Amino acid sequence: MKLTPQLAEEIVNTYIEGFARKDVDMIVDLYDDNATVEDPVGSEIRRGKASIREFYAGNVAAGARLELAGPVRASALSNELAFAFAAVGEGWKLDVIDTFSINEDGKIAAMRAYWNAGQS
Amino acid sequence: MKLTPQLAEEIVNTYIEGFARKDVDMIVDLYDDNATVEDPVGSEIRRGKASIREFYAGNVAAGARLELAGPVRASALSNELAFAFAAVGEGWKLDVIDTFSINEDGKIAAMRAYWNAGQS
Repeated sequence: MKLTPQLAEEIVNTYIEGFARKDVDMIVDLYDDNATVEDPVGSEIRRGKASIREFYAGNVAAGARLELAGPVRASALSNELAFAFAAVGEGWKLDVIDTFSINEDGKIAAMRAYWNAGQS
Repeated sequence: MKLTPQLAEEIVNTYIEGFARKDVDMIVDLYDDNATVEDPVGSEIRRGKASIREFYAGNVAAGARLELAGPVRASALSNELAFAFAAVGEGWKLDVIDTFSINEDGKIAAMRAYWNAGQS
């Protein structure tokens, strides 16, 4: 599997559409069974689909929608991508950059999210 | 050292200004002596200031300027930041997302750059 810009965009568009539709399965299906999620970076790492599903169910329930901010960046040298977006809910907005590592099956093996965390 | 949004912005603004002024020292001084640079992600990792200086001297000589695209994202939980920008030269433009790991001295210990690489 080679992470082309087209495949990277497909993955990110599906991810964003999952939020728009409040479809947790649509998001979680993008992940490998043994994937990790570190959101925000430096927080406890979630491992496996049950924990990842719980995480996204909470975010979707909170009414989060994602607004992409600029093109997806994808390197075929390591099958990693990054994209900038705003997560927007009722009365709140959070600027985020996500990185995804994509495995040989085209699934997300690791996600890390950068946002202004741990400031208090 | 705690990576506040203010400190993260200072680091990124200095980085961008170093390109604008074609001041390689200004950029390289942001780095720890034993820092690593992986640009693009998946390429051979550069280690140490001599190799990092060579890298930036080449970029500055190529006339690259950086245009920030949206706010810097900084997590104090891991002292990591990410920012989106376009690298712009004469007749070319490249959309990039950089991540920096900041050490206890406020220096960049590791930089990784995401852009559409390895596609050919």
